[in-house]
Amino acid sequence: MSLDRAPRHPALTNPRSDRVRSVRALSRRSVRSRTGLFLAEGPQSVREAVTHRADHVRDVYVTPEAAERHTGIIERATSAGLHVHETSPDVLAAMAETETPQGIVAVCRNAALTLEDALDALPPDAVVCVLTHVRDPGNAGTVIRGADAAGADLVVVSDASVDVYAPKVVRSTAGSIFHLPVVVGVPVEQILGALGARGIRRLAADGAGTTLLPDADLEGPHAWVMGNEAWGLPEELRARCDDVVRVPIHGLAESLNLAMAATLCLYASAGARHRGGR
Amino acid sequence: MSLDRAPRHPALTNPRSDRVRSVRALSRRSVRSRTGLFLAEGPQSVREAVTHRADHVRDVYVTPEAAERHTGIIERATSAGLHVHETSPDVLAAMAETETPQGIVAVCRNAALTLEDALDALPPDAVVCVLTHVRDPGNAGTVIRGADAAGADLVVVSDASVDVYAPKVVRSTAGSIFHLPVVVGVPVEQILGALGARGIRRLAADGAGTTLLPDADLEGPHAWVMGNEAWGLPEELRARCDDVVRVPIHGLAESLNLAMAATLCLYASAGARHRGGR
Repeated sequence: MSLDRAPRHPALTNPRSDRVRSVRALSRRSVRSRTGLFLAEGPQSVREAVTHRADHVRDVYVTPEAAERHTGIIERATSAGLHVHETSPDVLAAMAETETPQGIVAVCRNAALTLEDALDALPPDAVVCVLTHVRDPGNAGTVIRGADAAGADLVVVSDASVDVYAPKVVRSTAGSIFHLPVVVGVPVEQILGALGARGIRRLAADGAGTTLLPDADLEGPHAWVMGNEAWGLPEELRARCDDVVRVPIHGLAESLNLAMAATLCLYASAGARHRGGR
Repeated sequence: MSLDRAPRHPALTNPRSDRVRSVRALSRRSVRSRTGLFLAEGPQSVREAVTHRADHVRDVYVTPEAAERHTGIIERATSAGLHVHETSPDVLAAMAETETPQGIVAVCRNAALTLEDALDALPPDAVVCVLTHVRDPGNAGTVIRGADAAGADLVVVSDASVDVYAPKVVRSTAGSIFHLPVVVGVPVEQILGALGARGIRRLAADGAGTTLLPDADLEGPHAWVMGNEAWGLPEELRARCDDVVRVPIHGLAESLNLAMAATLCLYASAGARHRGGR
C-alpha cells in the first residue's frame, strides 16, 4: 500500500517485535486453542476471509508489494472496517508458517460454534460431513473444500483429529473454511449421538461397507462419517451408524484416498438433493 | 531375508557402487527417458509391480529387515523368477529418492506402449483419461489412482506434462500405474486427433464448460480431457473437444482440485457404464 492510500497504521518493520511473535505463535496448536485465533496465509485465504467472514477477521498484514497486487482484497478489508497493517517483507515472513505467504496474512478468530447451535441452524434436508481420526492436514483441508463445493451444510471435526485451524489445513481448504460452518473439538460418540437424536441418518463411508454408494439411500437429512485416511472407521463407530457405505472400486486399485472418497459421497448427496428438487 | 532362505545374490553393501549409482540416477528424468527404466519405492508399489507387471520388473532390492516384514512380496517376486537382491539399509537409502522407502524398491521397465496400440486394445465402450499440462506429481498420480478405481481403460499423458515415471508420481498412484495401460509422451493435438478418428468422444473437463456433469452424455466410448491444475485447458484445446463439461459447484468454493474433479468425472462414466449393463 503506497502512502497516498493512507494506511491506517504505520508500517511494521521489526520482525522481533511482540506483535510479530504473537502472530507467529499461532503456528502452535496450544496457542490457537488458548486464544481462539488462527492465521490465514496467502491471497486466496485472506480474500475469502474478508469477503465471507469479515466479522471473524482481527487484523490483515500486507507488504507494500502485495498490497499493490491485491487491491481488491485491501479494498474489501478496508470497507469492512478491518485493520490493515503495512508490514515489511521480513516481518511478514516472520509471521507466517508458509515459506511463500505471498505477502499477505490475516489473523482470524475461529467461529467457536457449538454442535447444538450448528445443528439447530440446519435446513430440513441437511447434508453434514463428519471427520474423525483424520490426521493429515492436506486431507482434512481438501475434504472441507470438497464439502463446500458439494454444497454440504456443515462440517463437524471430532476432537480426535488434526486441528482444522492449523496453517496447512486452512491453506488446503482454499478458502472453504470461511464458506461453511465448521464445528470442532467434540468427541465422535457425542457427534453421532446428537445426529441420531435429531433424526439425521449417519452414513459411515468405509471400505468395509456392504451398501454401494450408488445404492445408498440419500433422501432426507443425513451425515457422512469419514474416518482415518489409512485405517478408516473403527468397527465400534461403524456399528453406531445407520448404514455403512462404500464407494465401488471398478479397477484394481485397493482404495481411493480420503478426499476423493469424501468428495464422491458428498456429490452423490448433492445429486440426490438436486433430483429431489432443491 | 535371512541366509537360510537362500538369497539368489550376495548382499549389496557398498552405497558407492556403480549399481547403486545407476539406480539412484533414475531420479533424473533424462536417465529414465534414455534407459526406459524407473524406480518403484516402498512395499505398496513393489507389491503391485511384482503382482501385476512382473514382466516389467528388472530387479527388486530389499533390506533383510523389510524382507522379513514383507514375505508375501518376496515370495511373489521369487516365484515370478525375478532377481531379489539383499541390500544393506544404507545401500537402499542411497538408491531411493524417498526419505523412507521402507526397505524395498524395484527397478521397472516402462511399458513403452504406443497410442495406436493402446487404442486398438480398447473395448467398444471405452473410458479414457487424458492428462495434459499437469505439472504437480501428486495430482498426476492421484488422477491415475482415481482412473484405476473408476475402472477407466486407459490413461494418456501428453508430452507437456509431468513425467509419470517420476518417483513422486509413481508413489502417489498407490500402485495404480501397474494396473492399467498408460501412454506417455504424445503431443495433445495428436491425442485428440487419434481419439476423434476412432469415434471416441472427447469431453473436456473444465470450469469453463456449459454442460454440467450430471447432464453430460456418457454413453458410448469417450475420453475425459483434463488440463493444468491452476488454469485448466487452453481455449484452443477445448474447441477441439466434442463437449466441455464442468462439475457443478453447489457452495461457495471457487473450484475443485484436479484430482477431485477427475475422480467425479470418471466415476460418472463408471455409473453410466454400469447402468448400461456392463
